[in-house]
Amino acid sequence: MGDVTATDGTGTDTAAAAAVESAATAAARAALLPTTRDERAAWLDALAAALEADRAALVALAAEETHLSEARLDGEVTRTAAQLRFFAGVAREGGYLEATLDSPDPALIPPRPDLRRMLRPLGPVAVYTSSNFPFAFSVLGNDTASALAAGCPVIVKAHPGHPRLSRRTAELALTVLPAGWFALVEGMEAGVALVQHPVIRAAGFTGSERGGRALFDLAASRPDPIPFYGELGSVNPVVVTRAAARERAADIGAGLVGSFTRDAGQYCTKPGLVFVPSGEGVEDAVSAALGSAPTSRQLTDGMSAAYASALERFEADDAVSVLLAHEVPGTSTPAVALVDAAAFLAAPDAFLEEHFGPVTVLVSYRDDELAALLAVLRPSLTATVHRGAAEDVTALANALAPIAGRLLFDGWPTGVAIGWAQHHGGSWPATTASIHSSVGATAIRRWLTPIAYQDAPQDVLPPELRDANPLGIPRRES
Amino acid sequence: MGDVTATDGTGTDTAAAAAVESAATAAARAALLPTTRDERAAWLDALAAALEADRAALVALAAEETHLSEARLDGEVTRTAAQLRFFAGVAREGGYLEATLDSPDPALIPPRPDLRRMLRPLGPVAVYTSSNFPFAFSVLGNDTASALAAGCPVIVKAHPGHPRLSRRTAELALTVLPAGWFALVEGMEAGVALVQHPVIRAAGFTGSERGGRALFDLAASRPDPIPFYGELGSVNPVVVTRAAARERAADIGAGLVGSFTRDAGQYCTKPGLVFVPSGEGVEDAVSAALGSAPTSRQLTDGMSAAYASALERFEADDAVSVLLAHEVPGTSTPAVALVDAAAFLAAPDAFLEEHFGPVTVLVSYRDDELAALLAVLRPSLTATVHRGAAEDVTALANALAPIAGRLLFDGWPTGVAIGWAQHHGGSWPATTASIHSSVGATAIRRWLTPIAYQDAPQDVLPPELRDANPLGIPRRES
Repeated sequence: MGDVTATDGTGTDTAAAAAVESAATAAARAALLPTTRDERAAWLDALAAALEADRAALVALAAEETHLSEARLDGEVTRTAAQLRFFAGVAREGGYLEATLDSPDPALIPPRPDLRRMLRPLGPVAVYTSSNFPFAFSVLGNDTASALAAGCPVIVKAHPGHPRLSRRTAELALTVLPAGWFALVEGMEAGVALVQHPVIRAAGFTGSERGGRALFDLAASRPDPIPFYGELGSVNPVVVTRAAARERAADIGAGLVGSFTRDAGQYCTKPGLVFVPSGEGVEDAVSAALGSAPTSRQLTDGMSAAYASALERFEADDAVSVLLAHEVPGTSTPAVALVDAAAFLAAPDAFLEEHFGPVTVLVSYRDDELAALLAVLRPSLTATVHRGAAEDVTALANALAPIAGRLLFDGWPTGVAIGWAQHHGGSWPATTASIHSSVGATAIRRWLTPIAYQDAPQDVLPPELRDANPLGIPRRES
Repeated sequence: MGDVTATDGTGTDTAAAAAVESAATAAARAALLPTTRDERAAWLDALAAALEADRAALVALAAEETHLSEARLDGEVTRTAAQLRFFAGVAREGGYLEATLDSPDPALIPPRPDLRRMLRPLGPVAVYTSSNFPFAFSVLGNDTASALAAGCPVIVKAHPGHPRLSRRTAELALTVLPAGWFALVEGMEAGVALVQHPVIRAAGFTGSERGGRALFDLAASRPDPIPFYGELGSVNPVVVTRAAARERAADIGAGLVGSFTRDAGQYCTKPGLVFVPSGEGVEDAVSAALGSAPTSRQLTDGMSAAYASALERFEADDAVSVLLAHEVPGTSTPAVALVDAAAFLAAPDAFLEEHFGPVTVLVSYRDDELAALLAVLRPSLTATVHRGAAEDVTALANALAPIAGRLLFDGWPTGVAIGWAQHHGGSWPATTASIHSSVGATAIRRWLTPIAYQDAPQDVLPPELRDANPLGIPRRES
């Protein structure tokens, strides 16, 4: 795969199909050659180093294409390198293989032979990248890193929001990875062909509910359906308790504004729906903080227009008051939509939809209204509780837990940490598959499938399953 | 759910919908009440004991409805009780929760808070039962056992092949399980309504490719798609090496006939396609063993008819020789279809299809033909190698591994052992989801979804995630 840009996105269906075909053929060939976990970990480390070595040029290009700040993008390169190294560590440790050994027991019904199970790579996979994280959820982002760690060749469908950055990142990947292990394709036709290609064994996606659903439907309607792991969207509800508001309304207001306006409010974990106790001054604190909120240009003109029209709909709604930050030409103005519990419950759908951009909805509640408000929530990537010092919020946490992939306390959901215990998922519509997510060590499982060996000779077994455990990986033996 | 038979399968759409609605409402209510792992493990132990206590009546009823032998059915009750107790053990041990703790590290980019992840139940689930295992993959089979272990209420769609046994087993379940945790529904309308019901969060299925695909498509086309875990079908290829044939053709012939004719050849792991080296006498050994093969009646008249027509198609094919056991009126006659490699490769589809019943296909190969034969195989639940003593079969094993969920050596694939390392899956069309299967400890994962707690107070955390690990479960801490 010497070719980075198989199609420029303006080509014909034929060109897109040919690009996908060529990438898939090479990926299928690569998938047949065995690699070791250490080899793949070394690739990931080298990719991290390659990103860092090209940091200045990548950041400049990304800033031009995405309008995100250089400071944010510089931090995102650091994060992306850390993700690549994190998955290198996951691959080296080997626990992800879930190596499990059962010794024979002829006395059981049915008798148990020697059984040894581990996970192995599924084969070539497709990765659909996001616009809002041009590094961390793009060409060399979490999906690609976890798939390479698993041992799956990756074909990336570039996001049209940063085509030149995607190509430059792909060039770096091609300098590091062996033939067939990586390819970049562009354009909607290529994306549609990719998820339907017989060689592709799974797909990861970060983007809109509409786009994700369309690709999910294609994956499910194949003659041989494949898993489709889509992270779609989320309003990320926050509940501020009365005790919390009394103790620290100003802090909460400032923290909220900092979180929902961060990088023009273009985070999938943006707190987009905040329940605040009536009469405790949280609205005033938010309003005060809004005065000094940063303003910035959104990723694309389409997103700016969608944001403007969402604001117009809020402004046209008699039940909603809209607070606006000062307007700065060429940027999307941060805004807060205020509504009371009764109006929210009268027509919740308008407030339960994700609005990309620097806006959040504040719903003021009396204590006897909170349960009804929480009952209408849809599944979300995160839910947050702000509580008073030493306040018992167990009941509230238990009410929020069922709709949240991550439940956090006294913090803000933007800025998803990297770690073994992280989870960035949730039931539909937060993600298409509630089982595994794109962040955290278990992201690697999306690209794996089990095999059980029964009474296998030692030399046939992968080293990780041999008696001596020569590579010293964590195993379960019984 | 005092009512076992919500509908008898002959009712109207309205009756089926009402039955599903009533079961789903009760299941949704049950799912909201927290249970402990120990409580659920005790339910599973009690279900096992209840099955065993009613063994004689259950076996008699099952024999009448399925035509399987009482000896086989008695063994299957023992197996089913063992499965229930196995999942009780999985629940008690708690490792399945994948409890993972990350300590805070503010120096990281992004900073890492206190993160604690574990799996939790998805909510009510649907189980579609099989005809060929009226206990082990039916009302209280692996799907139900693993879902209850996980903490998910279960609504079972009964198989029409053994309605009275299903109802009697359901009565036992209702004496043991609390309200809402179990219901039985019957009839195709109920099955269709069930997988589409908003309350249902996942489904398990064991059956035909056609039926599984139809339900999979319904699950995927919901407004909120749910995971559908279907085990569909498989030919379970076997390769007998030349060395193995020279050493023990008679043993192999007898073992093969015993496996493919067992219980009228109605196992999803039946060896249905066997590659034997030309000129080594394996065909003769099989033919000899066929003379004393047991004959039995198939589960349903429909299956007998489908089997008869499969034999007719083989007999009408000039490239195929059919060996028949002696005919016994009222039973399906065991048969072997013989074909050479060239004829197989000329039209492989006829031989790659699963045929339920006591038939297998023997393909004789010359050594230079084997690679081409293996290249056309579709994914299967199992693949088997019979090798010579001390023969190195690594290359052959590596060729078969990609299409096999379980790869076994010098044995026969029927009789799926229970264990932590077992896997009963495979890529489409063996199963709809290659990630987890219905047998083995990880079957429980199909009914679970992660949650990550960030900076949570100790009293909000489930005990399994608290600092002190009061329940002493296996955890990963970093």
